[in-house]
Amino acid sequence: MKIEVRLSGSGGQGVVLAAIILAEAAGLHDGRNVVQTQSYGVEARGGASRAEVIISDEEIVFPEVIRPDVLLAMNQPSMNRYANSVKENGILIADSSLVKEIPGVRAKIFSLPLTELGRQAGGVIVSNMVALGSLLGLSGVASVESVRKAVLNRVPKGTEEMNVRALELGLQAGTQALFPPSEAEAGVGPGE
Amino acid sequence: MKIEVRLSGSGGQGVVLAAIILAEAAGLHDGRNVVQTQSYGVEARGGASRAEVIISDEEIVFPEVIRPDVLLAMNQPSMNRYANSVKENGILIADSSLVKEIPGVRAKIFSLPLTELGRQAGGVIVSNMVALGSLLGLSGVASVESVRKAVLNRVPKGTEEMNVRALELGLQAGTQALFPPSEAEAGVGPGE
Repeated sequence: MKIEVRLSGSGGQGVVLAAIILAEAAGLHDGRNVVQTQSYGVEARGGASRAEVIISDEEIVFPEVIRPDVLLAMNQPSMNRYANSVKENGILIADSSLVKEIPGVRAKIFSLPLTELGRQAGGVIVSNMVALGSLLGLSGVASVESVRKAVLNRVPKGTEEMNVRALELGLQAGTQALFPPSEAEAGVGPGE
Repeated sequence: MKIEVRLSGSGGQGVVLAAIILAEAAGLHDGRNVVQTQSYGVEARGGASRAEVIISDEEIVFPEVIRPDVLLAMNQPSMNRYANSVKENGILIADSSLVKEIPGVRAKIFSLPLTELGRQAGGVIVSNMVALGSLLGLSGVASVESVRKAVLNRVPKGTEEMNVRALELGLQAGTQALFPPSEAEAGVGPGE
């Protein structure tokens, strides 16, 4: 089992921290093999930010993400730039607060109000943790308990509660998007 | 011009944050191409931490560090594990507060009291910034001003001063190790 994740957004949206937390959760706490990368070049200096995580049960020989299984796009320029990279039938998560147009791609698209939920959790600064939570809810790529541990270990002292609340709001949003409440109430899963 | 840097230490010593700060300084502020990576596997779960930064003027095609030009080892297990990886005539920086034995390698070895200087700057928690400062002083791999900016952008609010002080103590230690005061006073540089 190998999953490749690409997180993208603007420079201030905290995708690098989200990627490090995901990597520590999967690598240190879930016991998987993980490579976590960020690249800085012309795009980054234009204000774009991109971070990647490869999670595998095997040794990771080729540490580069080309076609991610899961793509997060936290703003419109990132969506425009990376939408086409996502694997066919992969998962594409968009911040509906900031992404207004999603190009036609053959992935499962989930448009969630990440920034708005961040605000509800205590501030837009924790939108990255909402995003991470939604990604967990939608992909199960790391265990929630491991991610919670990694969050507590990585976020600044005094902001733990707000960050964990953001993670939980995101997790809830992600899970609900997979299993819309009306269907869940009727005991019907997706695809049935 | 291409420089590969490997930072290693124990899990709590903050080498991942130091690597991210170096990458942001070189990539966002100095305008270089940068790839920054951390890997988690069996070693990491044993408490070891390792992060890498590749800085280049060209596009970075092969994003993996095999033989770093600069190696930082912040504790003895990291030194034992990675000393042999450093390039011939590369730079090897050891935290003399914690590394008591340095294997014979054909690199320039600098043994500096990083943890002790961290304590002087305000706490051992900023030893990673001492290490980063020393690395700048010894290698010039990024500009000091860019690193200072990246530090201010990345460290938790309220700890900026302590972190910058640690960076400066490290920079001073690194520069002095390259140009020992006695020789500088006599107006004689190394190799003359």
